[in-house]
Amino acid sequence: MTDDRFAQQMAFIIEIDRLKTVARRTLIADGSRYENSAEHSWHLAMAAMILAEYSDEPVDLGRVLKMLLVHDIVEIDAGDTFYYDVAGTVDKAAREQQAADRLFSLLPSDQGVALRTLWEEFEARETADARFAGALDRLMPLIHNTLNNGHTWRLNGIKLEQVWVNTDIVERASQDLAGYMRALLLNAQAEGQFDGPQGNE
Amino acid sequence: MTDDRFAQQMAFIIEIDRLKTVARRTLIADGSRYENSAEHSWHLAMAAMILAEYSDEPVDLGRVLKMLLVHDIVEIDAGDTFYYDVAGTVDKAAREQQAADRLFSLLPSDQGVALRTLWEEFEARETADARFAGALDRLMPLIHNTLNNGHTWRLNGIKLEQVWVNTDIVERASQDLAGYMRALLLNAQAEGQFDGPQGNE
Repeated sequence: MTDDRFAQQMAFIIEIDRLKTVARRTLIADGSRYENSAEHSWHLAMAAMILAEYSDEPVDLGRVLKMLLVHDIVEIDAGDTFYYDVAGTVDKAAREQQAADRLFSLLPSDQGVALRTLWEEFEARETADARFAGALDRLMPLIHNTLNNGHTWRLNGIKLEQVWVNTDIVERASQDLAGYMRALLLNAQAEGQFDGPQGNE
Repeated sequence: MTDDRFAQQMAFIIEIDRLKTVARRTLIADGSRYENSAEHSWHLAMAAMILAEYSDEPVDLGRVLKMLLVHDIVEIDAGDTFYYDVAGTVDKAAREQQAADRLFSLLPSDQGVALRTLWEEFEARETADARFAGALDRLMPLIHNTLNNGHTWRLNGIKLEQVWVNTDIVERASQDLAGYMRALLLNAQAEGQFDGPQGNE
């Protein structure tokens, strides 16, 4: 153990505690409050453990878990950009690259480079592991919204067509999960969960 | 994909969302609120990725990650038992076994058995993976407490000797991490973080 290396590692571990204070736009399942990005990351990793068998291509679960644990860390600086916020999405990549520069460089360089490479693999969605991890990141908020009568969709006037796009992204990783999502969305539509703010309770 | 199997898997994934509502006795690093067990599990898994090199025995990081993601799930039914609550500790094991019976049986039996086995391995601390995972579970709350001027220790009148025991547990997994903890605790003692409720701000 060298003191410098350990000090860098602890500085990173303490810094990322802030992910617990990054609020997402999705309510937790019981509707009592908004979800934060740290607990969301935990939930995605658990979902990966349970649902890995539905990936159409073989995945390395250990790598998928690491990817999901790390995938939102840049939000500590860049914030959670709402998926349907067109203006916010314009500079999202630049803000997140800057955040990655700062956050991953807190670590000893071997570990910083390894985590950043994993995060960039997740963002690029070009490997089976990243596609499956990304599919879960699209699937879970949809489940939370249907459990809360379409809360985030209603509040922001999101329409079925905007969410449907996500099922195409998921389909690149899993036919089964995409099929499940489509059924869920059609049911949500039938229940009026895309009827906009006027339908909000 | 069989409908029954998938329905069981989704029921489990939705049920464990409740871990986000289980409050621990430790504040998050910025002191703004108590930590919940879901985000705590995420933070431990991240710490395992960064600190695995300090395990005295080789560990399988993928297994350690799974163990840490799952380790607190029984708290959904059993609650978070405060480590220094002697009365609560008496029936903790029984409450947690009951919780494990219910929660893991929501899953298809192959997956339920696999996760329960992993959780029981964590609880027994008889393998290198479990000892290392358990060491992180003892280390992190201590770091959070020193960052918050000994909040949980002061509030509950916890003394240095009671926390020192944890360093022996950690030493079974990592000499380095145990040495770090001891230095941190002696410093906290010098700063009056074990001076009881009267010192609480």
